[in-house]
Amino acid sequence: MKVHGKAYRSIWPLEIGKSVGIIDQTRLPHHFVEVELTNLGEAAKSIKDMWVRGAPLIGATAAFGMALEMARDPSDVALSNAWDVLHATRPTAINLRWALDDMRRLLAPLAPERRAEAAWKRALEISETDVACNEAIGQYGLRLIEEIAAHKPDGEPVHILTHCNAGWLATVDWGTATSPIYQAHNKGIKVHVWVDETRPRNQGAGLTAWELGEHGVPHTLVVDNAGGHLMQHALVDMCIVGTDRTTAHGDVCNKIGTYLKALAAHDNEIPFYVALPSSTIDWTVGDGVKEIPIEERDDEEVAWISGETREGDVKKVRICPPETPVSNFAFDVTPSKYVTALITERGVCAASKEGLAALFPEQAMLLS
Amino acid sequence: MKVHGKAYRSIWPLEIGKSVGIIDQTRLPHHFVEVELTNLGEAAKSIKDMWVRGAPLIGATAAFGMALEMARDPSDVALSNAWDVLHATRPTAINLRWALDDMRRLLAPLAPERRAEAAWKRALEISETDVACNEAIGQYGLRLIEEIAAHKPDGEPVHILTHCNAGWLATVDWGTATSPIYQAHNKGIKVHVWVDETRPRNQGAGLTAWELGEHGVPHTLVVDNAGGHLMQHALVDMCIVGTDRTTAHGDVCNKIGTYLKALAAHDNEIPFYVALPSSTIDWTVGDGVKEIPIEERDDEEVAWISGETREGDVKKVRICPPETPVSNFAFDVTPSKYVTALITERGVCAASKEGLAALFPEQAMLLS
Repeated sequence: MKVHGKAYRSIWPLEIGKSVGIIDQTRLPHHFVEVELTNLGEAAKSIKDMWVRGAPLIGATAAFGMALEMARDPSDVALSNAWDVLHATRPTAINLRWALDDMRRLLAPLAPERRAEAAWKRALEISETDVACNEAIGQYGLRLIEEIAAHKPDGEPVHILTHCNAGWLATVDWGTATSPIYQAHNKGIKVHVWVDETRPRNQGAGLTAWELGEHGVPHTLVVDNAGGHLMQHALVDMCIVGTDRTTAHGDVCNKIGTYLKALAAHDNEIPFYVALPSSTIDWTVGDGVKEIPIEERDDEEVAWISGETREGDVKKVRICPPETPVSNFAFDVTPSKYVTALITERGVCAASKEGLAALFPEQAMLLS
Repeated sequence: MKVHGKAYRSIWPLEIGKSVGIIDQTRLPHHFVEVELTNLGEAAKSIKDMWVRGAPLIGATAAFGMALEMARDPSDVALSNAWDVLHATRPTAINLRWALDDMRRLLAPLAPERRAEAAWKRALEISETDVACNEAIGQYGLRLIEEIAAHKPDGEPVHILTHCNAGWLATVDWGTATSPIYQAHNKGIKVHVWVDETRPRNQGAGLTAWELGEHGVPHTLVVDNAGGHLMQHALVDMCIVGTDRTTAHGDVCNKIGTYLKALAAHDNEIPFYVALPSSTIDWTVGDGVKEIPIEERDDEEVAWISGETREGDVKKVRICPPETPVSNFAFDVTPSKYVTALITERGVCAASKEGLAALFPEQAMLLS
């Protein structure tokens, strides 16, 4: 998608086999800084310090990190070490592990002198596969937006509420929840996005608002508290959010607060869609509320907020008394009954065991 | 309630007829600053600049402001001017106008030389009436907490979620939503409060967390997004919130985001109570969602967040790109069907026309 009018991806090859470019996302939205990664250590640091974030982008960065190491030292020891170093950056990221295992499975049987080229090629493929997957999600989601647009008075945009950042910055390109939005906008369909700020980390205010603004998509930032009021007053036509993990029964684990928006959508008969690559479906889990343990993160994310001062410095400020106890659950689970449908790279399906099984019969078969 | 171990009210007489003390609430939670108000101008400024906030406290401050002016100049002109000056500070505050009209009605018929003393006495009465009203709300709410406490395992606190600040800082003492909590705590019943930070103005993080902490009530600050997750996992036993306006049918207009918590409480069968003095019931309005216009406030409240830096300076930081469009609805309306009951100074009633009419027959009679 565009930044300053120029097409970007969140990760891109710079010199074949030797370096890739990324955006230091920790500095957004206040500073747009491109960073060159030239070796394993830099790739690992970029994941660990969250310069790159979002499951698909982390996976792609890890793949490139391994490819950079293979160019330096294609030995078995280096391969094994690269897996360990990259895996340790964010050990709970499923997609990271998937990418690393995929790379190792490909590289281990090869003679060392062939590994560098093969690794680079596979890292590129992982990136392209992510782009294609998100583009397909966007195409299916686009139809849902078009259906609503067809019933809007002339000149009225389709109002879409989203939570957190399931945007192109979290993937290699397009994003998941934002992919239908970008595709509609690029096609000339009028859309307007309500962007939840998404406390505690403010990925909506800092990333989604930034990327929509840079690409030219009309949008408005609101506090997380506002969505219910907007939906009560018919100011939202549909919700589209992303997900970190979807269960085989269609329960959706996503950024904390998603469940509250789903409840409001349900109460006001507004469709609530979840966009996801099928790689984030956890076929081993049924009841998401009961079975998915929710990560508790650092108190500081709640007590301290980062932003830019009037003087242009990026600073953190504490919003509560220093001694205030804080709790910081990072995700919640939206039960499938509040999800209108799932938008995947294979099509749109009901958020249910049956809906998912019909779209992914090979997975359903493995389980039954 | 207590601050640094000492009992405080939010407004208190200092020298009879000559001055009152308040807390500059704009400096909380980072600085606790007492301010002396000695004349009309200072009283008006303290309301306009939100050193004092919350309907009951604004009313009491306005009454004292008028009394201070009567001590300086008890003429008809001064009386009329004081009404105008104080009313202009926050023209939409219903309670402000109520207090001013009450004072004028009392003072206008009196000979000027009797006005100063009468005004001071009436301002004290208005304060005491508010304290008594909140104490009564607390007594009724206490019974609801006691019922839940009776069914908790030994040593387990009653977990209460609240939104915004309907605390003693917003009233003369006790608060509305917090009154049952303080009374339970003072009585030795174990309570623990989940404090919503309450974006955009963070009255939960800045005021409710501060006042609960100073009084010694166990509490935990959470982002507004967290309540749904907490309720899904049985970490909340009841919700108690305040209200700016309750309709004759029991719909509740309160700080933006209240509706989302009510939906989550409903979905998880957790009681959702609204504590209110009957002065905030608007008997002329039935359907709150349709009839109550929702104030939109300054964008800056959403885009900029105030807090204390590591260096101890209180600063504002902008959390989004400078050009991001922002919307800032200040309140929302929770339909009565999601309100378990209303806690008033006369008792607890259903959030319905019938429930309110039974408790306030004289009002219901006027309307029928």
